[in-house]
Amino acid sequence: AGQEVVVTTDLLVEGVHFDLSFSPLKHLGFKAVAVNVSDVAAMMATPTQLVVGLSLPPRFTVEAVQELYAGMRLACEAYGVDLVGGDTTSSRGGLVISITALGMVAAGQAVRRSGGKPTDILCVSGDLGGAYLGLQVLEREKQAFLADPDTQPELDSYDYVVQRQLRPEARLDIVHELRELGVHPTTMIDISDGLASEVLHLCAASGTGARVFSEYLPLANPTLEAAAEFNLDPIMAALNGGEDYELLFTIPVADHAKIKNHPDITVIGHLTEHDDAVNLITKAGQAVPLQAQGFNHF
Amino acid sequence: AGQEVVVTTDLLVEGVHFDLSFSPLKHLGFKAVAVNVSDVAAMMATPTQLVVGLSLPPRFTVEAVQELYAGMRLACEAYGVDLVGGDTTSSRGGLVISITALGMVAAGQAVRRSGGKPTDILCVSGDLGGAYLGLQVLEREKQAFLADPDTQPELDSYDYVVQRQLRPEARLDIVHELRELGVHPTTMIDISDGLASEVLHLCAASGTGARVFSEYLPLANPTLEAAAEFNLDPIMAALNGGEDYELLFTIPVADHAKIKNHPDITVIGHLTEHDDAVNLITKAGQAVPLQAQGFNHF
Repeated sequence: AGQEVVVTTDLLVEGVHFDLSFSPLKHLGFKAVAVNVSDVAAMMATPTQLVVGLSLPPRFTVEAVQELYAGMRLACEAYGVDLVGGDTTSSRGGLVISITALGMVAAGQAVRRSGGKPTDILCVSGDLGGAYLGLQVLEREKQAFLADPDTQPELDSYDYVVQRQLRPEARLDIVHELRELGVHPTTMIDISDGLASEVLHLCAASGTGARVFSEYLPLANPTLEAAAEFNLDPIMAALNGGEDYELLFTIPVADHAKIKNHPDITVIGHLTEHDDAVNLITKAGQAVPLQAQGFNHF
Repeated sequence: AGQEVVVTTDLLVEGVHFDLSFSPLKHLGFKAVAVNVSDVAAMMATPTQLVVGLSLPPRFTVEAVQELYAGMRLACEAYGVDLVGGDTTSSRGGLVISITALGMVAAGQAVRRSGGKPTDILCVSGDLGGAYLGLQVLEREKQAFLADPDTQPELDSYDYVVQRQLRPEARLDIVHELRELGVHPTTMIDISDGLASEVLHLCAASGTGARVFSEYLPLANPTLEAAAEFNLDPIMAALNGGEDYELLFTIPVADHAKIKNHPDITVIGHLTEHDDAVNLITKAGQAVPLQAQGFNHF
């Protein structure tokens, strides 16, 4: 069977997608690549090559650019992708990173957002909400630093959530494991804008409704602890926080047995008929319409 | 024989690569695509798909974005390329357009910059220096407008050079014709930074010297007229002006007969041994080292 090329592109803009006052450049480089690899993975494709465009403000030093590239190369190695080219130019504004990733997939096998059927099971990889809480921690430390530059950052106890924000991983491992398990998802998307927004995308493209059960949403302990401290609802962080870069996908009911014991895949609900709403089912059994309400960068 | 995918990427940054006070958005969209198609063409590959990233300042209206896209679509139709996706985000600075183009070429047949041999003939398509003079005209009109907003722009007599600046064409036609003539260039590059800079690139990559004859440089009449009016040396405009997006390429001496009667290809010199310099030979027969000295955006 032939192979198809898939391609994704992404712009990361200073002041919109990242804040250089708390993003180390090496992490930023890694994240820029990971985000694009994640997009390719979400088609069940294998990323192969990457091109990078950088628009650099005059204040950037050669060392800064090297740090950024070091992070990008690290991610390229981690995901087995070749950095094949790029374009560098000056910027009158902030730093802009443009990445385009190519991937390969067996012809006709790329997973899209539109293949979902009622009764298909909604699954998510990893855990959710951490990246958003990491951002809260970083923003708080930034404010503390601005108020008193002698403050030492207190990030240790937030390692997990800060890491989720600054250096997310693309779940290429899940793509490989699904292939090995013989599971071909009917839809897939990566979670960049929050679970709610992504479920709505899949349902709109597939012409279905959905039921997502709040009690099934995977939340890691450090996320729950940070949420408690910041007085934030961890469910809202999972639904609307975004930037977790986990995979959301649907599989036919018949494949449920193949994934149900997977330690890193959680069933969170299922698709329903077109006429049905896209609902969150609370612990108390109430159905609340899902809304993409938060934290969308654009 | 199998096909290979080639990929090129390019960032166009407001205030660095274009000035919205005189670039109509539709032309800018066209140019952004043409520049990338030109890059693919310069590998003797056929452009197939394009992805676009836009970083939009808040002042941009929906209509403005539509104009930009209309220009991009026009170019995609002109060059037979599919616009297959993109990313749109906000910008804290100016407009940034990121384009990545994919192309196909028979495996092993992509033309690189490194294949040149001493005695290979240096050729260029079209004519040179026009885009630079177009920019001079536009800058002058902008200053006149800033001094007196009631001034009517006087662009009619500069149609050709202004067009060269605002709406360059990718020379995909030359690629097709070379294929039909059975000419396989040993090196090729498109002229974005000026002939001098591109000749130096080819020579550095191929490990050769070169002789470029100033009297052979193709200069169009409107370019000569504008140069006279602006008191600029048209040879310097051709060498260092840039943005003409013509193709510079080398062919083996044996292929000279195949191109010598082509109305749109000019022989401008030849490659020499590694130890030789890269020289411009003046009308008087003097050898002057070529330097990439001008107008380089970065």
